[in-house]
Amino acid sequence: MQITDLINSIADRGLELFAFGRGRPWPQGPAGLCRALLSERGEASGIALARELVALYRGLDAAEREAFFTLLAREFGPDHAAIAAAARAFMAEPSASGALALAEAAEPPRRELLRRINMLPEGTEFVIGLRADALDLADGNPELRIVDADLKHVLTDWFSGGFLELRRITWETPAIILEKLIQYEAVHAIPGWEFLRRRLAEDRRCYAFFHPALPNEPVIFVQVALVRGLAGEVAPLLDPKAPIGDPAAADTAIFYSITNTQKGLRGISFGSFLLKQVVADLQQTLPNLATFSTLSPIPGFRRWLETAAPQHEVAAVRDAADDLLPALAAGGIEAVAADKARKAALTGLCARYLAAELRPNGRLVDPVARFHLGNGARLERLNWAGDIAPKGLEQGWGLLVNYLYDPAELERNHEAFVNAGKVATSRAVARQLKPYL
Amino acid sequence: MQITDLINSIADRGLELFAFGRGRPWPQGPAGLCRALLSERGEASGIALARELVALYRGLDAAEREAFFTLLAREFGPDHAAIAAAARAFMAEPSASGALALAEAAEPPRRELLRRINMLPEGTEFVIGLRADALDLADGNPELRIVDADLKHVLTDWFSGGFLELRRITWETPAIILEKLIQYEAVHAIPGWEFLRRRLAEDRRCYAFFHPALPNEPVIFVQVALVRGLAGEVAPLLDPKAPIGDPAAADTAIFYSITNTQKGLRGISFGSFLLKQVVADLQQTLPNLATFSTLSPIPGFRRWLETAAPQHEVAAVRDAADDLLPALAAGGIEAVAADKARKAALTGLCARYLAAELRPNGRLVDPVARFHLGNGARLERLNWAGDIAPKGLEQGWGLLVNYLYDPAELERNHEAFVNAGKVATSRAVARQLKPYL
Amino acid sequence: MQITDLINSIADRGLELFAFGRGRPWPQGPAGLCRALLSERGEASGIALARELVALYRGLDAAEREAFFTLLAREFGPDHAAIAAAARAFMAEPSASGALALAEAAEPPRRELLRRINMLPEGTEFVIGLRADALDLADGNPELRIVDADLKHVLTDWFSGGFLELRRITWETPAIILEKLIQYEAVHAIPGWEFLRRRLAEDRRCYAFFHPALPNEPVIFVQVALVRGLAGEVAPLLDPKAPIGDPAAADTAIFYSITNTQKGLRGISFGSFLLKQVVADLQQTLPNLATFSTLSPIPGFRRWLETAAPQHEVAAVRDAADDLLPALAAGGIEAVAADKARKAALTGLCARYLAAELRPNGRLVDPVARFHLGNGARLERLNWAGDIAPKGLEQGWGLLVNYLYDPAELERNHEAFVNAGKVATSRAVARQLKPYL
Amino acid sequence: MQITDLINSIADRGLELFAFGRGRPWPQGPAGLCRALLSERGEASGIALARELVALYRGLDAAEREAFFTLLAREFGPDHAAIAAAARAFMAEPSASGALALAEAAEPPRRELLRRINMLPEGTEFVIGLRADALDLADGNPELRIVDADLKHVLTDWFSGGFLELRRITWETPAIILEKLIQYEAVHAIPGWEFLRRRLAEDRRCYAFFHPALPNEPVIFVQVALVRGLAGEVAPLLDPKAPIGDPAAADTAIFYSITNTQKGLRGISFGSFLLKQVVADLQQTLPNLATFSTLSPIPGFRRWLETAAPQHEVAAVRDAADDLLPALAAGGIEAVAADKARKAALTGLCARYLAAELRPNGRLVDPVARFHLGNGARLERLNWAGDIAPKGLEQGWGLLVNYLYDPAELERNHEAFVNAGKVATSRAVARQLKPYL
Repeated sequence: MQITDLINSIADRGLELFAFGRGRPWPQGPAGLCRALLSERGEASGIALARELVALYRGLDAAEREAFFTLLAREFGPDHAAIAAAARAFMAEPSASGALALAEAAEPPRRELLRRINMLPEGTEFVIGLRADALDLADGNPELRIVDADLKHVLTDWFSGGFLELRRITWETPAIILEKLIQYEAVHAIPGWEFLRRRLAEDRRCYAFFHPALPNEPVIFVQVALVRGLAGEVAPLLDPKAPIGDPAAADTAIFYSITNTQKGLRGISFGSFLLKQVVADLQQTLPNLATFSTLSPIPGFRRWLETAAPQHEVAAVRDAADDLLPALAAGGIEAVAADKARKAALTGLCARYLAAELRPNGRLVDPVARFHLGNGARLERLNWAGDIAPKGLEQGWGLLVNYLYDPAELERNHEAFVNAGKVATSRAVARQLKPYL
Repeated sequence: MQITDLINSIADRGLELFAFGRGRPWPQGPAGLCRALLSERGEASGIALARELVALYRGLDAAEREAFFTLLAREFGPDHAAIAAAARAFMAEPSASGALALAEAAEPPRRELLRRINMLPEGTEFVIGLRADALDLADGNPELRIVDADLKHVLTDWFSGGFLELRRITWETPAIILEKLIQYEAVHAIPGWEFLRRRLAEDRRCYAFFHPALPNEPVIFVQVALVRGLAGEVAPLLDPKAPIGDPAAADTAIFYSITNTQKGLRGISFGSFLLKQVVADLQQTLPNLATFSTLSPIPGFRRWLETAAPQHEVAAVRDAADDLLPALAAGGIEAVAADKARKAALTGLCARYLAAELRPNGRLVDPVARFHLGNGARLERLNWAGDIAPKGLEQGWGLLVNYLYDPAELERNHEAFVNAGKVATSRAVARQLKPYL
Repeated sequence: MQITDLINSIADRGLELFAFGRGRPWPQGPAGLCRALLSERGEASGIALARELVALYRGLDAAEREAFFTLLAREFGPDHAAIAAAARAFMAEPSASGALALAEAAEPPRRELLRRINMLPEGTEFVIGLRADALDLADGNPELRIVDADLKHVLTDWFSGGFLELRRITWETPAIILEKLIQYEAVHAIPGWEFLRRRLAEDRRCYAFFHPALPNEPVIFVQVALVRGLAGEVAPLLDPKAPIGDPAAADTAIFYSITNTQKGLRGISFGSFLLKQVVADLQQTLPNLATFSTLSPIPGFRRWLETAAPQHEVAAVRDAADDLLPALAAGGIEAVAADKARKAALTGLCARYLAAELRPNGRLVDPVARFHLGNGARLERLNWAGDIAPKGLEQGWGLLVNYLYDPAELERNHEAFVNAGKVATSRAVARQLKPYL
Repeated sequence: MQITDLINSIADRGLELFAFGRGRPWPQGPAGLCRALLSERGEASGIALARELVALYRGLDAAEREAFFTLLAREFGPDHAAIAAAARAFMAEPSASGALALAEAAEPPRRELLRRINMLPEGTEFVIGLRADALDLADGNPELRIVDADLKHVLTDWFSGGFLELRRITWETPAIILEKLIQYEAVHAIPGWEFLRRRLAEDRRCYAFFHPALPNEPVIFVQVALVRGLAGEVAPLLDPKAPIGDPAAADTAIFYSITNTQKGLRGISFGSFLLKQVVADLQQTLPNLATFSTLSPIPGFRRWLETAAPQHEVAAVRDAADDLLPALAAGGIEAVAADKARKAALTGLCARYLAAELRPNGRLVDPVARFHLGNGARLERLNWAGDIAPKGLEQGWGLLVNYLYDPAELERNHEAFVNAGKVATSRAVARQLKPYL
């Protein structure tokens, strides 16, 4: 019998032993496979068993998947008695080896199960998909959070920074990867291939991180426009008919879109690492570039203006909101733009929102601000009518913001932000912010 | 300032802040760097700090390295108080989330430190080197074993099976990889490039696993000869002048050498996984192959014969040893070969040694037997004068053994071996073994 | 001074010495450059001069290009006096070396000029472009045909079969190549990327020849559908929503489109060579395929029916045309389809047109038939309403034809076709043809 | 029947129809195959026929090969009657089209035969081998020179500059290519892999041209040492134990070995083109390099000194030779070195030999000087005891010479050399040369 026959034969026997389908009660099925995969048999025939498990899982409907995760949560966690014994031993005589024994006792067998699934070439992709499902299900079923924690744990190890490969995406990249950009782009949608082509022209750059186990799948990607001066408006950067500039003549790199593509990698952060490598690569290949900045959306500003600002503890914020909201409702930003004081007020509230509005846990409310300021960038400039497409108006009344990455101050800003909650701003933004503090 | 300047500047300040050298007391140096790498600063400037740490470590002498590992053991373990608190909470109310909290409390910061070093492209290679050093040092310094355990833990995650890529090594492979085969080959030394060339000719195969973070470094490799019938003698397989056979005419694949190359990956097993993939690839590309077998050394047989056999609990073993040892001492295997009964006795004792001699922990004494029988192979044939080179005589009085990989019985043999300690043998070997049980 | 400076400096001096522009009389310019490139200077600085010439040519308008080709025709042909001398010598004493001397005397310096241009990496592409221009211009200016002949001569040498690389085109191919398929496709237009994606799905194949000097440019490509049974209708093969079949289950490969992409390579034939290699590759990778056939358009049938058939020397053809033309004019093919006799007549005339209508030079009138029958294919089946898109109706009243490639009879058919003008047909087609011979 | 069967079947029939072997009269065999390949059959089944011809040729012994070339010379030349007719027509009315018709009549069918062989992937390599054989045979058989001329003609087209790819050779290059360097190296033999490894270290460069049809075969390669100052001695550059320098600190690139690898490409010159591209690449990647020079052997100096110098027309040359020869015979160069006047005389004669000794055709006697000076290099410096290995002493009494490539004067030197026979020398060499002019 050949090895492939062997695999098929195991698969066949698998279908019998662990048989499992929509119409039948299934608890025996995947449970049996998971147990086998963790046993001695898993050592001998792990690939066949893992392949079987993957196929089985793919056939499950939503309810069956929830049952599967519940199984993982209940049956494949660590042994409480063993933990208790190790804990007692450690407390009786604390030691490094006792701590290690305790850590080992507390290590859930689920993790080893995931590692064995990862013997498959397609294992990593499958586990990312598992995590995406776990995240969805754990929203309504807190018991599953423990499974999500283990999925995140192993994925964090597998997506260690040094394993990620920075690649430039160009029009010479395989279409199977380019179509992913169209599918995934989260900030400014790409309506079709001709639009994508323009975003990959000579005066644009696109970089992505790839993981060796996912060769055709960008894990995160960033799009850059090479321009002269700080760009404040996004439409010209996206226009497929815009004339193509000379990259060597550009002095500024504008990061106008960053997209994480894998829901299953949520909370495993690549963005900061990516931006720093991209800045380094741009500096080396285009020495004329002197400024590195984003042109970013302000996702929650309008909602905050409408809900939180009218009852803000700072009177100036409340007053400005009370004045602006009816004006905006009546005439939109065109009306406000025509009134110099109101325009300044809306901009000032936006600065307030970005730089000073905190969540109960003390972190900034705006997720994009939190990311870039946390990276050590500086809140550089607010741009009126930077994005007047419907989404831009809906998120931030058309305002866009530049976060400036100055390599010389990134580390200092980062530490001040993390340790003291201090936000780096340009003088202009500081002035706009001042009335609303 | 450019990012590369930034990195250099940090490196420069690093040299000042964490200054550290042969002539100076150094405890502050790497300790400071490790602390910085684990801090918020490590998030902002992790790559620069990690690079600094790697450079620093490379400059250390043996005593300084031991001090560095001691630092890791003492300062970068988990917080005992936090463990104790989590342990108390768990014991008061055992729960899945309590177990997770305990696992997190017991997770040593050392592991996160290693993960941050792995942001470097060369991080994985460096950590493998760290582990090799830790293994050396822990031999004489048990306190360091805890560091070794953490190194092994993270490396196990990083060397997850699905990340390994099976590649065939041929004469078209870059020389930088081929020279590693010459350096690393552990079973039958490769005296020079012409010898290597023969081992890569058409009737030979060489396969290796590669890890994406070590592009020019085979992690493990196996050498295969394609022959007709079960080979029992190794010299013809190694002879650089041997005529080159037609691979399509071969019916048997002989695995005559398997080498793990990285000391730092000791205990993380790839061999079984490699052999199965190689068998699958050979079956697909050379459908005429019907038999897959090793031709293996018997590393400890002679020593066992000289030390353990004379005082063996089985009288037949003792008697045979008493008879054989003087004969071997006087005339070597030529003398024994001339005496049919003695030849049978030596072969029988060898079967006994391979199939039935156990260590106190109940596992087989011979490491090669342990590996192949554990994979589900069968002890197929003992070959008189299979390797009469000095090393072969010194290890096993010239005897070699075939472990046969029959895909149809691998799983069954593996389970019987693991669960019941049962060794699969051919009938011929069973017969040879019988008098000495 | 650096080599690049040197190149630039030559370029600068070039602009002075050979200055040449739209407003100025130019005969001196490119002529000077061409002379320099053929001189000793060309040996030393050929790359710089060739680059200059390429840039100069690209800046020319149509009239200037015609003047340039006229220059090539008049000044860079062989020396008539030298030819006459060599001819006299040969006739006085014919010999192999005299023939060679004569061949060398008759070799136009234009060819060497083109070879020197081909020192540039982009030289081949440039010369292909030159030939495309020469073909256009020679239509109205017979003097230039001699230049076209030399261009074709060198390109034939450069595009020697063994230099062409067969590559499969898939969705993993770089977009820069895929967009060329959309641009070039000459048989059934590809309206957009989603249509292309379907044509590259699992049950389709696309192969192209590439030349090493044109890495992103397919020289010719063929599109194949893997189906069950001989396909007679093209729409289902092109439908982007068609369900994707299992390639392993297909028994027939339908070549439904072949496109030569480079006008400048006209008359240098790759199609036959491509088809044979594709058949060989398909046979090897999909052993279930038993039938290889085209589904081809009949480009000139309708025009022939309307112009040549009514005054045909064969009375049956004339009569059928006289009957069919008014019916088609009145009711199109739907009307004809409803009348069994007329449907048979139209099909029979089509068979006549494909298999028996000759040009004055004795070759078949229909270029597609000429190509496939010349390759040794068999005229297998006429398909009513095979392509009822506007182009299909306009070319061949919706009829399509299968040319069957049976490897066992290709050589025999080819020889009979070439030597005896005999067209291989299936029995069915022979029957349809018979009344009109 | 499958295409591969078809090919095999043709091959089988081929063996019958064109049967041909050592013991049998063979004229029918290859002649038949060549005729078939040029016929219509060749169009249909060219690949199979060409493959057959290649196999047939490979089985021929030397006498049979000579017979084969004689066949090509006699039967596959142009038709003399057709040439005569075209010649008459041209002389009656000279015209461009008449010249073309004459050129076509004089084009030997041999060339088309070679082009058809080149449909095979291995065709180019085979034709190179044919040319090597033709060169060998034509030495003793002038009738075959005509075949050599045609072989050279088609190879010149196929090896057009733009098709050659410059690649750097490093230790990461496949061994199958590296071993070619060891085999081919013509100037300073490479005794083994460790020597090669040193020549590919960081302070060395090796570049080669590759042709797409010969992927593993360097067509020409050059070896470069990166040093400080003009190197005059070769041993330190070859020493495998020499410390490895920092390439960024080097100011001089020394080309110490250039090797053409393919005898079959003799007379098709790549060296000049290679050197210029290598200089350009070095300038770009190592901007600190200011000097580009060879360190070259003087192959014929000693022989000239011993045979031609004693009877030289210039008395000073005769006198110096008469004085030096007995001294060299008695004490070798050590003796001469000890005598300042004699050392100067030997050096001066060497300058004379390199710069002023001509063959009857007016070209320099020394082939290496002819090559570099023809490229526009300058005769820069003579180096006493530059190569005291046996070969160096035998060729040039240990002297080596630097030819300096100064990009600023290459073109000027080249033209002066080609048009006026003027050799560029440094002032020092001019001084050494002066007494012997």
